[in-house]
Amino acid sequence: MFNRVAIIGLGLVGGSMGLALRKAQAAQQVAGYDLGKGVSDRARKIGAIDQQYSALADAVRGAELIILATPVGTMRSLLQNIATMASPGAVVTDVASIKVQVINWAQEFLPAAVSFVGGHPMIGKQVSGVESADAALFQDRIYCLTPTRHTLSAALNKVSMLIEALGARVRFLEPAEHDGQVAGVNQLPYVASIALMNTAASDSAWSDTAILAGTGFSDVTRLAAGNPEMNRDICLANSEALTRWLNQYISALTEIRDRIAVHDSSLDQAFARAQQWRQQWQATYDTEK
Amino acid sequence: MFNRVAIIGLGLVGGSMGLALRKAQAAQQVAGYDLGKGVSDRARKIGAIDQQYSALADAVRGAELIILATPVGTMRSLLQNIATMASPGAVVTDVASIKVQVINWAQEFLPAAVSFVGGHPMIGKQVSGVESADAALFQDRIYCLTPTRHTLSAALNKVSMLIEALGARVRFLEPAEHDGQVAGVNQLPYVASIALMNTAASDSAWSDTAILAGTGFSDVTRLAAGNPEMNRDICLANSEALTRWLNQYISALTEIRDRIAVHDSSLDQAFARAQQWRQQWQATYDTEK
Repeated sequence: MFNRVAIIGLGLVGGSMGLALRKAQAAQQVAGYDLGKGVSDRARKIGAIDQQYSALADAVRGAELIILATPVGTMRSLLQNIATMASPGAVVTDVASIKVQVINWAQEFLPAAVSFVGGHPMIGKQVSGVESADAALFQDRIYCLTPTRHTLSAALNKVSMLIEALGARVRFLEPAEHDGQVAGVNQLPYVASIALMNTAASDSAWSDTAILAGTGFSDVTRLAAGNPEMNRDICLANSEALTRWLNQYISALTEIRDRIAVHDSSLDQAFARAQQWRQQWQATYDTEK
Repeated sequence: MFNRVAIIGLGLVGGSMGLALRKAQAAQQVAGYDLGKGVSDRARKIGAIDQQYSALADAVRGAELIILATPVGTMRSLLQNIATMASPGAVVTDVASIKVQVINWAQEFLPAAVSFVGGHPMIGKQVSGVESADAALFQDRIYCLTPTRHTLSAALNKVSMLIEALGARVRFLEPAEHDGQVAGVNQLPYVASIALMNTAASDSAWSDTAILAGTGFSDVTRLAAGNPEMNRDICLANSEALTRWLNQYISALTEIRDRIAVHDSSLDQAFARAQQWRQQWQATYDTEK
């Protein structure tokens, strides 16, 4: 059991972690901090934290485990601030969807007595805010951990204890490997979605066309409704891997465009391959869920 | 009231039309024809047709309205065959998701005494087969009609009667205008989806990456599960408009890739525009439904 856990950022992820830790009685005290107006209050009222703090230093002080559950864009300054606040021996972990950049910041700012373990819970929910927090959010979901050669096994054990309390399944990945993979399945679909939305809506006939758009259009553009700043920060922090994926995607599209332009009737081979892959993936996904 | 309506192709659309016509008592007789083994039988058993035929000519003979509810790939030969079978004065309509090509075939093959009106019901269901047929499938949905300067108003009235019986809302469009618009909201999203699926799954790490893919990936790739041959036929029949849209889409992606590659922090402007458009579209879509 943890004596004191501090959760910085009490949105869907931070709030759900608090609920899960308290439900599993995995910590004697869960301390919470959030910049948002009234957020800490709501988190305490729904039972996600025991104690709310208006100063980051007070939330972090004495915590055995510090969970950074804030957007990627805040991570750099947060790690910089926490560096002087965390008690010696504390373990810091984050939940950002990219890892190399965050790990670099942690190595740059955190003192030797404070350990860092990069983490990324795969929750795949399209809601946000402490209002949607749920103790079962991580149940049976994959939780990526990206230890490096600097990571102490004692620190890794602490974060594994957290994951166990959440009911998630741990998956170890190299940081760069993780970022390459999530660029393909998280950031690339997002960019594909916003580019499609912008392409369709930039057309002069859009006000008419919009009426004809149905469920297919709705599915492919759903991710475009996501938070622009948060997605920008993630895309830029994972720029290299994402650029590589975008190049692949653009060439796949270009090849199909060329075949369509010349009325190549063997086009269905590429379509059939996608169908087969989609069905295989769906079958695995349904089993995993 | 129609005396006799012939429905060629008894899948989701043809079957649902039969159910709706019979429910609305809009026809004295609904004749049905389908090449699929046992399909006509099932259509008759669920009450989608009054009479099933094993020869196309017998189904079509004497029909006041002939509805072609088969995939785009069959339309050319179907129109060619029906040309000699349809009774003088008959009106032929189709439900294909592209119109210019089908109208050209109709003009090429049908005799002067047989009229053609191109149609496209927007149902946006991702199921198929007569088993999923539903009399309410078209209720309050948009039904595009694409008359040309050759279209007789008597023929247009007949098809309008059909749409009224289905409970759908008619929308008149120029054929080329229709094809340009559906290329943007139907075929472009499909191609974006299959290209993304193929890009992700062609990667050497796919077996690992697949496990990390969640609801976002699932949404964007859902259309890739569609029938490859049917989609090929549609994409090739609408080649010109789709190529134009694909060029737009590829340049939108290329521009975003370039910004990501140079860490351009104003990237969120494009993302914010997409978010706003998506939310506006969603609001209208929810109201329309």
